[in-house]
Amino acid sequence: MSYRSLGIGLVGTGFMGRAHAIALRSVGGVFAAVPPPRLVHVVDADAGRAGQAAEELGFLRHGDDWQALLEDPDVDAVSICTPNHLHHEMAMAALAAGKHVWCEKPLALTVDEAAGLAAAAADSGRAHLVGFNYAVNPLLSLAREILSSGEIGEPVAFSGRYYEDYMADPAVPWSWRCDRSLAGSGALADLGSHLVHLLETLLGPVETVTGHVSTAVAARQDPVTGAMRAVENEDIASAHARLASGVPATLDISRVASGYKCGLAFDLFCSRGALRFDQERMNELQLFEAGQRPGRDGFRRLLAGPAHPDYAAFNPAPGHGLGYNDLKVIEARNFLCAAMEGRAAWPDFSDGLRVQRVMDAIERSAAAGQAVRVEANE
Amino acid sequence: MSYRSLGIGLVGTGFMGRAHAIALRSVGGVFAAVPPPRLVHVVDADAGRAGQAAEELGFLRHGDDWQALLEDPDVDAVSICTPNHLHHEMAMAALAAGKHVWCEKPLALTVDEAAGLAAAAADSGRAHLVGFNYAVNPLLSLAREILSSGEIGEPVAFSGRYYEDYMADPAVPWSWRCDRSLAGSGALADLGSHLVHLLETLLGPVETVTGHVSTAVAARQDPVTGAMRAVENEDIASAHARLASGVPATLDISRVASGYKCGLAFDLFCSRGALRFDQERMNELQLFEAGQRPGRDGFRRLLAGPAHPDYAAFNPAPGHGLGYNDLKVIEARNFLCAAMEGRAAWPDFSDGLRVQRVMDAIERSAAAGQAVRVEANE
Amino acid sequence: MSYRSLGIGLVGTGFMGRAHAIALRSVGGVFAAVPPPRLVHVVDADAGRAGQAAEELGFLRHGDDWQALLEDPDVDAVSICTPNHLHHEMAMAALAAGKHVWCEKPLALTVDEAAGLAAAAADSGRAHLVGFNYAVNPLLSLAREILSSGEIGEPVAFSGRYYEDYMADPAVPWSWRCDRSLAGSGALADLGSHLVHLLETLLGPVETVTGHVSTAVAARQDPVTGAMRAVENEDIASAHARLASGVPATLDISRVASGYKCGLAFDLFCSRGALRFDQERMNELQLFEAGQRPGRDGFRRLLAGPAHPDYAAFNPAPGHGLGYNDLKVIEARNFLCAAMEGRAAWPDFSDGLRVQRVMDAIERSAAAGQAVRVEANE
Amino acid sequence: MSYRSLGIGLVGTGFMGRAHAIALRSVGGVFAAVPPPRLVHVVDADAGRAGQAAEELGFLRHGDDWQALLEDPDVDAVSICTPNHLHHEMAMAALAAGKHVWCEKPLALTVDEAAGLAAAAADSGRAHLVGFNYAVNPLLSLAREILSSGEIGEPVAFSGRYYEDYMADPAVPWSWRCDRSLAGSGALADLGSHLVHLLETLLGPVETVTGHVSTAVAARQDPVTGAMRAVENEDIASAHARLASGVPATLDISRVASGYKCGLAFDLFCSRGALRFDQERMNELQLFEAGQRPGRDGFRRLLAGPAHPDYAAFNPAPGHGLGYNDLKVIEARNFLCAAMEGRAAWPDFSDGLRVQRVMDAIERSAAAGQAVRVEANE
Repeated sequence: MSYRSLGIGLVGTGFMGRAHAIALRSVGGVFAAVPPPRLVHVVDADAGRAGQAAEELGFLRHGDDWQALLEDPDVDAVSICTPNHLHHEMAMAALAAGKHVWCEKPLALTVDEAAGLAAAAADSGRAHLVGFNYAVNPLLSLAREILSSGEIGEPVAFSGRYYEDYMADPAVPWSWRCDRSLAGSGALADLGSHLVHLLETLLGPVETVTGHVSTAVAARQDPVTGAMRAVENEDIASAHARLASGVPATLDISRVASGYKCGLAFDLFCSRGALRFDQERMNELQLFEAGQRPGRDGFRRLLAGPAHPDYAAFNPAPGHGLGYNDLKVIEARNFLCAAMEGRAAWPDFSDGLRVQRVMDAIERSAAAGQAVRVEANE
Repeated sequence: MSYRSLGIGLVGTGFMGRAHAIALRSVGGVFAAVPPPRLVHVVDADAGRAGQAAEELGFLRHGDDWQALLEDPDVDAVSICTPNHLHHEMAMAALAAGKHVWCEKPLALTVDEAAGLAAAAADSGRAHLVGFNYAVNPLLSLAREILSSGEIGEPVAFSGRYYEDYMADPAVPWSWRCDRSLAGSGALADLGSHLVHLLETLLGPVETVTGHVSTAVAARQDPVTGAMRAVENEDIASAHARLASGVPATLDISRVASGYKCGLAFDLFCSRGALRFDQERMNELQLFEAGQRPGRDGFRRLLAGPAHPDYAAFNPAPGHGLGYNDLKVIEARNFLCAAMEGRAAWPDFSDGLRVQRVMDAIERSAAAGQAVRVEANE
Repeated sequence: MSYRSLGIGLVGTGFMGRAHAIALRSVGGVFAAVPPPRLVHVVDADAGRAGQAAEELGFLRHGDDWQALLEDPDVDAVSICTPNHLHHEMAMAALAAGKHVWCEKPLALTVDEAAGLAAAAADSGRAHLVGFNYAVNPLLSLAREILSSGEIGEPVAFSGRYYEDYMADPAVPWSWRCDRSLAGSGALADLGSHLVHLLETLLGPVETVTGHVSTAVAARQDPVTGAMRAVENEDIASAHARLASGVPATLDISRVASGYKCGLAFDLFCSRGALRFDQERMNELQLFEAGQRPGRDGFRRLLAGPAHPDYAAFNPAPGHGLGYNDLKVIEARNFLCAAMEGRAAWPDFSDGLRVQRVMDAIERSAAAGQAVRVEANE
Repeated sequence: MSYRSLGIGLVGTGFMGRAHAIALRSVGGVFAAVPPPRLVHVVDADAGRAGQAAEELGFLRHGDDWQALLEDPDVDAVSICTPNHLHHEMAMAALAAGKHVWCEKPLALTVDEAAGLAAAAADSGRAHLVGFNYAVNPLLSLAREILSSGEIGEPVAFSGRYYEDYMADPAVPWSWRCDRSLAGSGALADLGSHLVHLLETLLGPVETVTGHVSTAVAARQDPVTGAMRAVENEDIASAHARLASGVPATLDISRVASGYKCGLAFDLFCSRGALRFDQERMNELQLFEAGQRPGRDGFRRLLAGPAHPDYAAFNPAPGHGLGYNDLKVIEARNFLCAAMEGRAAWPDFSDGLRVQRVMDAIERSAAAGQAVRVEANE
């Protein structure tokens, strides 16, 4: 298959669908190597919303039938931006229809679903990408370069947190996020999936985990019925992980972490240095290099700039600030280039399956009260 | 004049031209109230670059003749993203051709030029906007709301800095930025214009200034001839200003400020509180409210979120980070809405003229060794 | 027993012994309520060092015989500032001799030792205090006030870290700290003891723990023999804890955490707010109060000041900065006042025993691979 | 004259007097090279307070007659910790009595007074020191080392601020600080004196200044009479300074800077790097070194540690935090060593005179509306 430009189908026009579309409209202007894709077809369960989105975002066609979209021959690649529980069915169908697939995270609700997707994707010969957007930050690409260069030695330990407070107030009403059949796990799926992905991106596969989960607010008011309704998944999850490399890691995840808005953060300790990152200051990476002159060492604040991967495409000047939406543009580039060039995208469905396996192991460990081994992808 | 959608002409396809185009492609998806503009015509002095930009950014026509672009009847509005010394001629012609004009900063090289533009713009009945992008940050809109609400009392003093280090290294070669006929003043025009605009946006017009300028690196190597060549404008400028309201302000501006990449920052002290901002952490505003319980006061870090002006259009979740390019989208919205609705844009050419007057007064004061009064716009 | 002023005996004249002596010399001037103690007798294994310390610090008598010091009738209270493995014997003897005892942390090497000390101390009727100096920080006293006032609701979760890098470099030689018989555990005893104490101070007793330990540098060079020698205790320890109140906590401790110098830090999440603290910025406490106006919430940086417990004795002005040695002055006040007034000091030997029990449980859990219950003090 | 140990007389037992006494009690224990001084005689206008201080701080004699103290033959050195307007008379008398003199800042109310003191001090052969305590911070000694080593090149520009908010609230009553005859200037004398001293310490003498002063709160309520009373000196002062070396500097000083508690801060830009400091985080110095690998530069946070001047005397471990009172101990060491060794102390009365000259020039410039030359010390 060869393309001059990819035709895009978008499923779902909420915040995330719009973020995909805006990124797809920008990507050709930002990255000169990417032929601008054609926005062909957009669908939403609400046909009116789909029509409005088509006009605002510049899609040629719109409707409320995602299967029709998959049959549209002008659609080469599909963005799946629907609620979590629909990812599996839609992505399977999209792969079956021969489309490249960009699916939002979490890839699926269960390991079985994710394994099915990863297998189908591997067999499809199409590009497939999971929307772990934080990991494509130029400063995290820099972090990977620093690690692989050996300039700060070998990894010694990792400590990661992902704190948000969107459910900290007990008065926040019950929602689909509290429903295991719609959301899967709680903080773990919504926030922890990013953290686990980041950990494996930086340090390779997790081998064993010991997990703990708890629900701080046991029941919340149903906004429809007014009745109190049980929260079926965890508000807080934490884990000790041992990587295949032997490096120990701790993970702490909470959706009831008052005061934090996007607190995805880590310390990565190495034998001759360290890295610190905090998504709330996503344009900064803290680098410590051991072995400076006495009295001259300390964490150094690197501000994102054109010397870092991908940044220069956005801005020729350092320190001018990328935002969340720019990460989506990088993600779009990853997806489109992989699709055009017939090679694997990053992060792909097998990465999504890895994350699902680790999250599942954390939940199983928490239930069993002992360490659990994470299965390897085949 | 009424429009369903504006046709855009873009002059200049460097970084800033691309930033305008990307913003114009995104603005309809971000702000539902804005009909997506049509990207009609792009020109660049280098016709090949114009063609490439047209393809990457989705313009219908391209060329190397900006006057032809102004004659294009499908072009309703023009973005001027050329070097500083071309702003005046092009913007005058664009207004004369009946176009709405979005011009990059600084508006002009001299007060006379800026005054001519402001007068022509006022007479034109068209929308006109100067690209002081930092000021449209949701957190600075919040700052204006906080000030006007009186919740932290009356302004007492302002201290502003804009530090960058792009010319800190004496080995940085001579460039057009060092040439008064091409750049106008130095750090003052490039950086100070933003700071002066921000000051007047927050606190109203400056009435008198006492200024100081100096050139840290007197000569730089000409990259063409290899010879040392005099730097004709200042590396460092500072000023004491007194506002019409009587509030004192200090301004400190440098392009040789080692370590700073985008250090536009201020302290704004009021009678019952204070605000602090730093563009290098553009998603944070520090708010101090006096009168808390003893032992409970302190600067509070507000992270940009959907409760702040314009943010929700980008992201429904707080703390997820806007970037430089998002500011350009807000600016595009300001421009397009004004043009569509036949009302004044913000910040407009009269604001650009005000800034030019203050910068000019700083230079005159530095030369005269005494305070200088800033002329009012008519 | 009643005193006009206490006579002090000091055992050990290294850094910590000097810190005690300096604090004891200052405490009467800082806290008007404390009659200045008399520095009576100082001993060190090296008699010459004892003599020098006596002169520099103003002790009346000196020597190398700690038992003689205990027999000195002018000594009412003893500071024990010797290596860890001597604490138990000396503190037992001091209590037996009827002295008040200020013992450095960790209180002992084992739970048995600590339990013996706590029992003897309880029976003695004398004041006893363990040197968990970080916890007496005015801002942590404030944290306790905030918690107990209920102003930020009920505790939801705690995440604590204590990172230092003094053994991060594999070239750091083997020392007594690597020897289990002299140091007990590794990072856990040296750093973790402070963190566990802080956790229990803020949130009450730990009920169960799941622990993990690892040694990043398995062997280090013996500085005497030049041979590589096994490190007998852990470089890194982490734990999940469940408090008696049901609140979950995570602890992460490392002495190989490159870049950190005194990284004792925590997040304490409550139902209506949160607290953050970092010992490297010991004069700051971050307070988040939920329920602010939309767009006005965020972490507020409280700078230590006279509105906070104990600060005003040092300085009438806020923000002027306390240091490590000032914490020792507060500790001295706690000790001396308790001794003078015949009441319990804080933190006392039973607190030290609690900490020992939790650390022991973490090690036992790590060995057993499952959660372990922490025994209660009788 | 030779001493085994100096006898100390202290005049004034408020906060600052106590700070001196506590430092003098500690200095021998902290700095092994300093023979502990003998606290001989303390006086206060209130004899009862003097008696209480004598007991709490360990002085042998006390009273309310400072002239009697000066006649005390056991007093070798005098600490003057009285209100500003008394400094001149007392310090002159102390020098005349042959005492070494440690005088709090500002040295005097006027240039004439300061010049008289500097001359008398120079003639006396005694040690004399002015209490510019912030400048003796180990990290600022490090800053001086870095500057003089040339490792970050030549100075290019300095920007300094000193912000506090102790008079920000208009309801703060009138006090002696508002009275020119008792306080001299306002923010300038109280806060600016530290900043000017720091500037000259780092970069050498100021040659010309252009100053601006303003009073934000024109009248305050007299706490005795209840009537409104004019504030006779400035709340806010700012200046542009040109150093003898040609380097430009800006100074901004305010006692109505809401939210700041001890905001003495500067940026010092050099040709190959920069330094940043903020007294509210007094254990941190930010160092920028140009010329790192691309993408690896940034400000590095140096935490105070034993590799920095004077720190190791307080603590063998880095990052453990010095406080305000520790700075006074270093100051005491500077004073006592100079006195014992018959050499000049730092900062001495000639430094105090320099500061007075610069402050005076700022005020004169503000009145004249033009730049003013700072007289050199003879």
